[in-house]
Parts: sequence; structure tokens; C-alpha cells
Amino acid sequence: MEDKKKKLSMVVFSGDMDKLMAAFIIATGAAASDMDVTMFFTFWGLRAIKKPVNTGKGLFGKMLGFMYGGDIRKATPSKFAFWGMGRWMFRKMMAAKGVLSLVEFRQLALDLGIKFYPCSMSMDVLEIRDEDFIEEAQPSVGVGFFIAEALESQITLFI
Amino acid sequence: MEDKKKKLSMVVFSGDMDKLMAAFIIATGAAASDMDVTMFFTFWGLRAIKKPVNTGKGLFGKMLGFMYGGDIRKATPSKFAFWGMGRWMFRKMMAAKGVLSLVEFRQLALDLGIKFYPCSMSMDVLEIRDEDFIEEAQPSVGVGFFIAEALESQITLFI
Amino acid sequence: MEDKKKKLSMVVFSGDMDKLMAAFIIATGAAASDMDVTMFFTFWGLRAIKKPVNTGKGLFGKMLGFMYGGDIRKATPSKFAFWGMGRWMFRKMMAAKGVLSLVEFRQLALDLGIKFYPCSMSMDVLEIRDEDFIEEAQPSVGVGFFIAEALESQITLFI
Repeated sequence: MEDKKKKLSMVVFSGDMDKLMAAFIIATGAAASDMDVTMFFTFWGLRAIKKPVNTGKGLFGKMLGFMYGGDIRKATPSKFAFWGMGRWMFRKMMAAKGVLSLVEFRQLALDLGIKFYPCSMSMDVLEIRDEDFIEEAQPSVGVGFFIAEALESQITLFI
Repeated sequence: MEDKKKKLSMVVFSGDMDKLMAAFIIATGAAASDMDVTMFFTFWGLRAIKKPVNTGKGLFGKMLGFMYGGDIRKATPSKFAFWGMGRWMFRKMMAAKGVLSLVEFRQLALDLGIKFYPCSMSMDVLEIRDEDFIEEAQPSVGVGFFIAEALESQITLFI
Repeated sequence: MEDKKKKLSMVVFSGDMDKLMAAFIIATGAAASDMDVTMFFTFWGLRAIKKPVNTGKGLFGKMLGFMYGGDIRKATPSKFAFWGMGRWMFRKMMAAKGVLSLVEFRQLALDLGIKFYPCSMSMDVLEIRDEDFIEEAQPSVGVGFFIAEALESQITLFI
């Protein structure tokens, strides 16, 4: 019991650049503090672990894949995104301060052993398939898996 | 002690269609995993347990009731809502995949014994009265009630 | 052990008027329930503990300081903000119901002994300095500090 690691579980619902930054900063910070970290990506958050492909088979799915296509590099901040330049500006500011990019943070998370699980129900609704995700992603899981993880966690967050 | 159920408490702040989906999926998933689940609806989340009526007595309250009136069926997704068709499109996609609608998820939550509590302070500010909620809703409570519930919970989320 | 206070930790990511209200209502409610409360302000949430000054040194930082300048009094609600009158209207409705303003809630939080910590990484990115915060704010901290606090907490929220 005493050598069991503390655990953090996180639902990543948002696909916004700034919220994904917060999610990965907290996740990697926890892993660096020797915690086990599990991230569940659902709805818009699924973009964070997608390959840079458009998705969708049906009409609506294709439309959504077109509107919300691309991968983590396409994430825009939740504020000032409508300026178009929001993403570009934040990247510049982060690089100038030596802060990792989202792609780098995601890789750091993987290097630290953090597990990425896509939520199967939101994949169904948004018409995203297992093969649309990066290879490091785990197989998709249902909500029961998340509940079980959260019950073993000292910290659980919804972002 | 050993036959005491695990517990999940949730603050539902958002009234967005997609976030309400996430909230009800997690809540019903936890209840299906034999947990006690309590949902506290506050601010925009109050819409999820409202009757389909406009609310408000004063000028601002009436305006808000008009702008934000209706019930859970009026919830729009946090993304692509400005297209107007966002709500309609998501409903179609969910139905096509056999995913429950928000109304059906809410009923499932009630059937599973999940308790819905409206937050009295945000009701005051937004000029929503106890009788504006569906009959299955519990009497309104203050923040102290939520804190007490969260202290007994293994999982607490703010959505 | 039995005289150790229960603890609540909160990441305040949002700078929206309504979410800050929810954050301060929960935080002060927990403190009033005799809990230790720690609030970590990050990204847009940093505005909640800023002085009413514009920030930024570089071009982008100055632009952001201009667009997102001012202090907690400038926070706008996450809905209906585009009407411009959203902030004014909500203040009126809150005052009419005898609900504290954000400034008053922040002061109540301080009076109840709640600690405000700014996140150093988001300060770096957004070009906000320690001296830009109100005097009651604690020195800035990294994510490791938050993880340590959350591990000692019975309730942890991301708002």
C-alpha cells in the first residue's frame, strides 16, 4: 500500500488552446511529482490526440470534420480566437518565454508515461474512429472506465 | 462502513448542450456503477432542470428570461451554436448513433435515483423561482449544502 | 489528526464574471464551513487578483494588456457579454438581490483567510508581473505547488 503511487484523473472536454495548455501543464506537473496520471479526452478535447486528418462519414460528420478538422496544432484560444491571430500570437508569446508548445507538452506527457484515453461515446457522435488518433493513444473507453479510474484518484478534474 | 456507497458530487454551472451531455453521461455512468450522485445546478446550468417557461419579474429578469428562456431542449452546443443549426445537427448525429437526447439522459438520471438541487443564490440573481423547475427537482439549497456533500464524495466535478 | 482542517483547492482558470462569482461563492462557502481554502489563479483568472493596470512589455503582451486590461471590475459574463450591457445588467441584478459584488466577495475571501496564488507560468506567457497583483496576493507559484496542495485536499475544482 505504501509504495502505491498517488493518482490524478482528468476529463479533457475542451479543445481550446489555452485550456489544453492548462490540462497538459497540470498533467505533466503531476507526473513529475511522481503521480500516475490518466487523461480522458472527450468531445472537443478529442482533437488533442487526433492525427491532422479530417473525419466523418455522414454529411454532418463530414461537415464537423471540416469545421473542426486538423489536430492539436489547430487549437485556438478561448479568448480572442475570432481575431484569427490569437493562436499565432499566443504561440509567439509562449515561444518567447521558453514555454513548450502544445505538441511538445503532449510529447512530454507521453514521455512521462501519461495515458491518453479517447471517450467512445463522443467518438461515435462526432464520427471519429480509433484510427484517427495518434498511435500513442490507448483504445477508446466508456464512462465506466473513467469512473473506476477517478475512484482510485486523489485528484480528479474536469477541464 | 463497508456497505456505504461511494459518492459523486457535481456542480453543473454550464447550460451548453455539449457540457450538459458530458455532465449527464458522467452522472448516469457513476450511478450505473452503484455510486450515489448529487447534481447541483447553478447559473446557466439551472436551465437543465427548468420547465419550458420564461422567468423573471423585474425588467432585467424578464429580459434574461426571454433571452435565456425555455428548458433543456433549448440548450445549444458551446461550439458552432452561432450557426443556429448546431443544436439541430448535434441532435441528428446523436440520434443516428443511438445516443440518448438530453431529455432522455435527464430522465435516466432521475430513474437511477440521482438528486437534482438548484442553487438558491443564482436563482435569486437570475429571478428563477422554485416553481419554475421540473417537479422532480429538490428544494433549492445554498453553497453550504454542496460543500457538505462534496466532503462526503470520492469524486467532485465542476462542469 | 482530528483537529486538522479539511481543505479545498481550486484552479481559477476563467476570468468570466459569472465563473468568478461561482468560484468565490464556493470558496467563501467552504471557508465559512471551517475549511482551509487555496485558490490558484491562472491564465484569464489572473485578472481576478490584478490591480486595475494594463500589463505587458513586448508588443503582444502590451496588446493583450490593452485588450484584457483592468481588474476584477472589468470581468464580463460568459453569456451575453457581447451586448456590452451584460456586466452592468448582472451587477444591477446582483445588487438588487443583496448579493455581494465580485470585489466584495474577493474581500470576504481574504477576510476568511483564503490564500490567493498566481501561477508563474501563465504570468510569464501573459507578461504579468508580481507587482501587478493586489497586495494581498501571495508570491507566484508553479504547478508543483498546486499539486501538493490538491493532494492534501478533500475537494479540488477546476473553474
